Amino acid sequence: MTSDEDSVRGCPKEIPHNEKLLSLKYESLDYDNSENQLFLEEERRMSFLGFKCLEISRWVICGLIGFLTGLIACCIDIAVENLAGVKYYVVKQNIEKFTEVGGLSISLILWAVLNSAFVMVGAVIVAFFEPGAAGSGIPQIKCYLNGVKIPRVVRLKEGPMIHSGAVVAAGVSQGRSTSLKKDFKIFEYFRRDTEKRDFVSAGAAAGVSAAFGAPVGGVLFSLEEGASFWNQMLTWRIFFASMISTFTLNFFLSIYNNKPGDLSSPGLINFGRFESDVSSVAYNLYEIPLFIVMGAAGKSPLLFLDFSTLLLVNYGAILKCVCVCVLRYVHRPCLQVMEAMLVAAVTATVSFAMIYFSNDCQPLGPDQSEDYPLQLFCADGEYNSMATAFFNTPERSVRSLFHNPPGSYNPLTLSLFTLTYFFLACWTYGLTVSAGVFIPSLLIGAAWGRLFGILLAAITPNGSVWAVPGKYALMGAAAQLGGIVRMTLSLTVITTVYTVLIIVIHLVVPQGLYDIHIKLQSVPFLHLEAPATSHWLTAREVMGAPVTCFNRIEKVGTIVDVLSNTSTNHNGFPVVVPVAICGLILRSQLIVLLKHKVFVELARSRLTQRKLQLKDFRDAYPRFPPIQSIHVSQDERECMMDLTEFMNPTPYTVPQETSLPRVFKLFRALGLRHLVVVDSENRVVGLVTRKDLARYHLGKHGLEEMQLAQT
Amino acid sequence: MTSDEDSVRGCPKEIPHNEKLLSLKYESLDYDNSENQLFLEEERRMSFLGFKCLEISRWVICGLIGFLTGLIACCIDIAVENLAGVKYYVVKQNIEKFTEVGGLSISLILWAVLNSAFVMVGAVIVAFFEPGAAGSGIPQIKCYLNGVKIPRVVRLKEGPMIHSGAVVAAGVSQGRSTSLKKDFKIFEYFRRDTEKRDFVSAGAAAGVSAAFGAPVGGVLFSLEEGASFWNQMLTWRIFFASMISTFTLNFFLSIYNNKPGDLSSPGLINFGRFESDVSSVAYNLYEIPLFIVMGAAGKSPLLFLDFSTLLLVNYGAILKCVCVCVLRYVHRPCLQVMEAMLVAAVTATVSFAMIYFSNDCQPLGPDQSEDYPLQLFCADGEYNSMATAFFNTPERSVRSLFHNPPGSYNPLTLSLFTLTYFFLACWTYGLTVSAGVFIPSLLIGAAWGRLFGILLAAITPNGSVWAVPGKYALMGAAAQLGGIVRMTLSLTVITTVYTVLIIVIHLVVPQGLYDIHIKLQSVPFLHLEAPATSHWLTAREVMGAPVTCFNRIEKVGTIVDVLSNTSTNHNGFPVVVPVAICGLILRSQLIVLLKHKVFVELARSRLTQRKLQLKDFRDAYPRFPPIQSIHVSQDERECMMDLTEFMNPTPYTVPQETSLPRVFKLFRALGLRHLVVVDSENRVVGLVTRKDLARYHLGKHGLEEMQLAQT
Repeated sequence: MTSDEDSVRGCPKEIPHNEKLLSLKYESLDYDNSENQLFLEEERRMSFLGFKCLEISRWVICGLIGFLTGLIACCIDIAVENLAGVKYYVVKQNIEKFTEVGGLSISLILWAVLNSAFVMVGAVIVAFFEPGAAGSGIPQIKCYLNGVKIPRVVRLKEGPMIHSGAVVAAGVSQGRSTSLKKDFKIFEYFRRDTEKRDFVSAGAAAGVSAAFGAPVGGVLFSLEEGASFWNQMLTWRIFFASMISTFTLNFFLSIYNNKPGDLSSPGLINFGRFESDVSSVAYNLYEIPLFIVMGAAGKSPLLFLDFSTLLLVNYGAILKCVCVCVLRYVHRPCLQVMEAMLVAAVTATVSFAMIYFSNDCQPLGPDQSEDYPLQLFCADGEYNSMATAFFNTPERSVRSLFHNPPGSYNPLTLSLFTLTYFFLACWTYGLTVSAGVFIPSLLIGAAWGRLFGILLAAITPNGSVWAVPGKYALMGAAAQLGGIVRMTLSLTVITTVYTVLIIVIHLVVPQGLYDIHIKLQSVPFLHLEAPATSHWLTAREVMGAPVTCFNRIEKVGTIVDVLSNTSTNHNGFPVVVPVAICGLILRSQLIVLLKHKVFVELARSRLTQRKLQLKDFRDAYPRFPPIQSIHVSQDERECMMDLTEFMNPTPYTVPQETSLPRVFKLFRALGLRHLVVVDSENRVVGLVTRKDLARYHLGKHGLEEMQLAQT
Repeated sequence: MTSDEDSVRGCPKEIPHNEKLLSLKYESLDYDNSENQLFLEEERRMSFLGFKCLEISRWVICGLIGFLTGLIACCIDIAVENLAGVKYYVVKQNIEKFTEVGGLSISLILWAVLNSAFVMVGAVIVAFFEPGAAGSGIPQIKCYLNGVKIPRVVRLKEGPMIHSGAVVAAGVSQGRSTSLKKDFKIFEYFRRDTEKRDFVSAGAAAGVSAAFGAPVGGVLFSLEEGASFWNQMLTWRIFFASMISTFTLNFFLSIYNNKPGDLSSPGLINFGRFESDVSSVAYNLYEIPLFIVMGAAGKSPLLFLDFSTLLLVNYGAILKCVCVCVLRYVHRPCLQVMEAMLVAAVTATVSFAMIYFSNDCQPLGPDQSEDYPLQLFCADGEYNSMATAFFNTPERSVRSLFHNPPGSYNPLTLSLFTLTYFFLACWTYGLTVSAGVFIPSLLIGAAWGRLFGILLAAITPNGSVWAVPGKYALMGAAAQLGGIVRMTLSLTVITTVYTVLIIVIHLVVPQGLYDIHIKLQSVPFLHLEAPATSHWLTAREVMGAPVTCFNRIEKVGTIVDVLSNTSTNHNGFPVVVPVAICGLILRSQLIVLLKHKVFVELARSRLTQRKLQLKDFRDAYPRFPPIQSIHVSQDERECMMDLTEFMNPTPYTVPQETSLPRVFKLFRALGLRHLVVVDSENRVVGLVTRKDLARYHLGKHGLEEMQLAQT
């Protein structure tokens, strides 16, 4: 795409998002401990009791993470409940007032304004203060757990529950918050990538768990998305955090609802019990082909979404008008806020129009299951069925789609709703608001699933007996969500739907929306295995070479020059004694050494000098200062630095002939950041990093290599 | 313990089972592919389509595994149902006949004889044909997945569902059965440890899934117990096998029950729906302390069981009389069979006595929930409540403990039942029968849980309203099972009970029964992490040295001599060029090379000789002939063998200074069998194997080292 084409279409030039590119801007996390002398000394000094204490504090931290996540979920729940309540109450009153006297356009304006106002608050926060909070946060957490450093991913900010959980975890486990500039001087042992990742997993699980009231689902989510190494103790801690989170949420909600001690409401999103109306209607053999069809259908919207996302991101304005395109790609925050508000207003308008022109009246049931039944132009004792779907929080809409008795919706209402909501959801995804794709997917799926069930009952003889629409709504929701989000294993627990359907989705859907998102951002994401056909590649071909190495005792000037070289910008340096590799040292470690001026000459002259300790490294973690901020005088440049006790003396190495899948397995299983390639005499010949491995992927015609770019 | 003490106690001398010993008789499996030239050539020759086909055949195999496992489960279910039906029907008729005329001792004898007869069939098969089928098979599968080669673990034999699944998987995935001497010449690609393990995981999951009707539970079991490396594609295949297995079981059972197509009965073991009577009674906050108490109580029987197992195995006859001890330790199969029959008869007698002397009569409910209500000495329209617990299949007993309305049992009945059943279960575990500990644990737990609930309702004011005994029965079952079996994460899905309880169990119970079993067998089992305090140990200290190495071109005589040396009996040999390591070759590979006489001289003289291919290695897998069976003439001993293209040219290596946790992590994460330790010039200095790592464990006072023994 040339920039000419760009300007023709009226879109400003955009950073070239491309799935064939791999961005160099992402750094890697280091999930392999640097076992240098300092670390080993500390570990060896620590008593058995010390390890017990550490283990206990891990549990305590996980408990805290769960508690805080649950508390946040509780606050969000209460706030959303009340705000939505106020909004719908006001609008309902208004509509009722104007239905008879005419002038419903005032109601429309009121609704649109209220919607926009709520959205504005969120959009302003995101656009002006924390651009990273846009979207659902799930792709970011996925990348973090995979080992990619996403800037500011776990900084303090609002966001959906999973993200909130991860942020809480990062804060609590480090015993300090850089956003809040507060250091409690506790949990210093956990200030490294390995430990932090474990806690972030727990936080993500606690978030999922609070959102869905399903601790096991939370654990599965964390494992499915993040962990490559199944560690039973870690799993237990994650489970513990999830349980505490669900429990806390329940406990405080029960107090809020004036039923203290009643722990029956499991999570934020509660679609009601299915036992009475769906599961007990046992699935029949002849329904399985239907579910397979639905599973496949769950894929098509995905394909469409995929296609339209690609269109949107890569080729500008086809789906949307030029105006929207301009708004989307202009990075000025106020325009972003305005777009968000526009979407909110359009949503309200469309919803209103749908309700207004619908004439699907349903009798009010005796159980009064509708929260805000709108009578509008219906007869007394009836309510507008379209309003149930549109004039409601999405959670409530899903619940009514699942549970309302057959006949509550007519097919036309559902078709219109599905279509409209789908387009609105597409537009909303990618806005500057902290909005997820989860609930919208469920809602769309439930709508077309119920539609499917109704049609099925209509066209088959005796169909109404077995084609319970609620059951098909559930299936549709699962299919749609599975197709889009693809965290299907956790889903089977979350929604307790487990059928051949899920397998089918898995087989037919190449990748989920989150994966597309990750790909479009050119993140060097490592999948679980190397591409199948990559055995002919060896470490020699994929590694980066030549490698900048340091001597065990190296001149300060050399180190400063290498670190200052912005063209290479390496982060790990093998340490060599003339012939062979003897260690690996990280940029961050060198920076700390330079900052504390740990030079051989100084050590000799000031014998009483405090020895550098692990604590100094931990205090600097995770935001080490850049090399430019460290002043090294000309005299100091001539000094020497002894790296022996700071380097990792036993880095993992592979011979040059090692095949790519073998290198990949080692790298992925151990969560490495740098893997040194050596020859038969243990001389360093190259260095394999994340981007060297993430570069290869299976395309349609076999192995393809992605381009690296400085985007 | 001296042998004198032994003979005093009248016990024959037993192989010293000891948890401080590590047996040398177990070999390791090799979950790291030997990427030799042959393998790499095959992989490089294979097209993209070839890999697709392999992937598809993996799915097909998993489907087959699931199907066959489900079929077996179905047959077992129908057989057990019918046999139990016949037994209870005959005994019930008999008891009813003799209740009035007297002479109930004839009924007792009938019951005991029937019991013994059934047990005899099983015991004869196990004792005479397949000693490996004793017990539940779960510890064996755990060890296999961990990487320990248990002889004949996946040979064709009967056994509980999980074991059946694993056996089916091993057979199907290899495309042949050595027990049945049949080779279908398919799936040859999968004839190596790595691939086989994946299928065995799937089979185990399918087994669990069929037994409990919980595919997700099956997947979790496999992952929790076996996999260390979380591979998403593998997880999906495992899930697929589980689903197919549940589905098959359901489908055939629905046909058997004359309700074809009705897939509502999920698994073999079905404790009925809880929604109506337990879950809907929401858990209350003040119940959580009670559950914690129950969780702790679930531990005490375990401690007792642990204690008694230790006593039984190590110190002979304290719990049991000398007679039983003699029977247990005499390894003559006929005596084993007799012991099993004795236990069956005693069980029948004790049960009968309990029923006979009980006077707990309950009115027959209108819903007739009892399958075999025994009236005995009760009034008309009443039945003997003790009989519900004893005169029933255990599954049915559990179901009635869970679901029967309050008041169905009186506390005395339950206490007596719990105690008696507990002792019987202890005795049965460890018999020569294929019997598990799963259902008995559930039954005992349900019994004391219900007792607890009843007592609670009695002592608290207004207690009967909220202390629903069925709920406490469920909690008790979960606590007991969690305490004994400790596969608690899978359990939370299987029994759908998730409460703080489970966490408590985990924290208070040091290890489960299966782990004790594994420890007593001195199996070199690798846990997930190295002991926390082992950082001061390095590869140098734990490795085996000196190492027998081969040259790249080695004299046949040398190889034969090394392989024939029974005192060392090594299985992996580093290959060196004078200074440095250049590969690793396995005993099994050398055996195949010798068998096919792949000597340099022969290759030169017979230029047309067929080159050795991967197929030759696969055909020999997994039972390679011993070196003694291969004849090498004196002339041939002078020949040379070129190992270059058969050795693994890129074995993983570590420097000598690597800490034990680091070595452990590499070894465990990659499923290695041999890890070469090298010095800074890449010279081989040692070899780390499984037993070198499994030797260290955390005792009460820190790190302890186990003794190696040739048991």
